[in-house]
Amino acid sequence: MNRIITVSREFGSGGRELARRLAEKLGVAYYDQEIITEIAKRTDLSVGYVKQITANRPFASFPLHIGEHLGQSLYVDPVLQQSSSVYGEQHKIIQEIADKSDCLIVGRCADYILRDRHPFRIFVYASIENKVARCMAHRTAGESDNVQEMKKKICSLDRNRAKYYEFYCDQKWGARENYDLMVNTRGEDVEKTADAVYDYLMKILK
Amino acid sequence: MNRIITVSREFGSGGRELARRLAEKLGVAYYDQEIITEIAKRTDLSVGYVKQITANRPFASFPLHIGEHLGQSLYVDPVLQQSSSVYGEQHKIIQEIADKSDCLIVGRCADYILRDRHPFRIFVYASIENKVARCMAHRTAGESDNVQEMKKKICSLDRNRAKYYEFYCDQKWGARENYDLMVNTRGEDVEKTADAVYDYLMKILK
Repeated sequence: MNRIITVSREFGSGGRELARRLAEKLGVAYYDQEIITEIAKRTDLSVGYVKQITANRPFASFPLHIGEHLGQSLYVDPVLQQSSSVYGEQHKIIQEIADKSDCLIVGRCADYILRDRHPFRIFVYASIENKVARCMAHRTAGESDNVQEMKKKICSLDRNRAKYYEFYCDQKWGARENYDLMVNTRGEDVEKTADAVYDYLMKILK
Repeated sequence: MNRIITVSREFGSGGRELARRLAEKLGVAYYDQEIITEIAKRTDLSVGYVKQITANRPFASFPLHIGEHLGQSLYVDPVLQQSSSVYGEQHKIIQEIADKSDCLIVGRCADYILRDRHPFRIFVYASIENKVARCMAHRTAGESDNVQEMKKKICSLDRNRAKYYEFYCDQKWGARENYDLMVNTRGEDVEKTADAVYDYLMKILK
C-alpha cells in the first residue's frame, strides 16, 4: 500500500508551505490546488466556484421549513446537491491519487476520505498573532493592511473550513484525536519546522 | 535563561515514559513525582493526599448557597484553602526548578506557571483504544482486567486532570493553542516516539 501523508492547516499558519517543503524532502507527489482543478474539469464548474464550494459548509438554498412543506423526500435542494456532487468527485479523485503512488495531500478532507488506508495525519496551526503577522507579511497587492480586518478574515476562513469538514466528515476539525502529529509553527521559519517534521517522520515511519 | 520543556499527557498515552526518555537524551534534569514529594515536605501533608489534591478540581466542602448565608467575604472554605496553598507551593517549587538549570517538567501546570519563560510545551495523547491496551499491558497486581472498567478509569482520571488545570490555569487542557507540539503515540513503541520528538527538538530549538 502506498505511504500517504495528509496535512490539514489553519489559514496563515504556514501549513501549506510546510507541506510543500515536506513533500519535496520526502520525494513524494504533492497535491493541493491540483485537486480543485481536477474537480472543476470533471464537473464543468469554474475553478473559482469549486474553491468556494469546498471552503464553506453547504447551505440549503431555501429555509428548511419550506423544504418540509414541499415534502422532504421529493424535494432536492439544488445547492446542497451541487455541493454533494463536488464532494463526490473530490472523494473519487483523492482515492485515485492514493492508488497511484506515495503522496502528500493538503486539506480537502483527505485524512478522513483515506482513513481506511491509515495515512499519517498532520495538523499545522499557530497563534492568531503569528497568523496575522504572517498574512500581513505575505499579503497581495490590493489586500487591506488593517490588522483587525486580517484577523477577522483568518478566523472566518478557518471557521468555514471547519464547518465544511465537520459536515462531510462527521468529526471535529483540529481536534487532537483526529491527527497523529500537531505542529505549532510559532512564527518560526517554516523551512526549519518542515525539516523538524521530516526528521520526526523519518523516525516514526521507518 | 534556562531551557525549559514541559510535557502534559493523557493518562495511559505513554507520555510519562516519553518524557523521561526525552530528558535523558537531552541530558536535562527531569521532574515529575519529585514535585509532589517536595510539596508534601513543605506543607506537612502526606504524599498520597497531595497527589489526590493535585489530580482533582478543588471543590467546596459546603454547597455554595450555605457559604453565601454565612457571608462569602468572611467565610473561607477549608478544602478550597488547602488546595490553594498546595497550588501555591507547587507554583513556588516549579519556579525554583526553572531557576536552577535546563529541565523537563511533567504535568503540574508547569506550562502555565512558567509561561513568561516561554517553555517548549509538548502534549502527549493517544486514542482510547491504545490507552486501554497500554494500561492493560502495564497493570499492577490486583488491578482489574476488565476493559470497560479500565476505560472508565482512564476517562475519569483525564477529566479530573483537565478540571484541575482549567481551575488554576484558566485555559483549556489539551487544546492545541496551549502547546507547541502535540504527539499521538499511536500505540507505537514509546522509545521510537521519544527519539522522533528528540530529533524534532534538535531542529527547532537550535
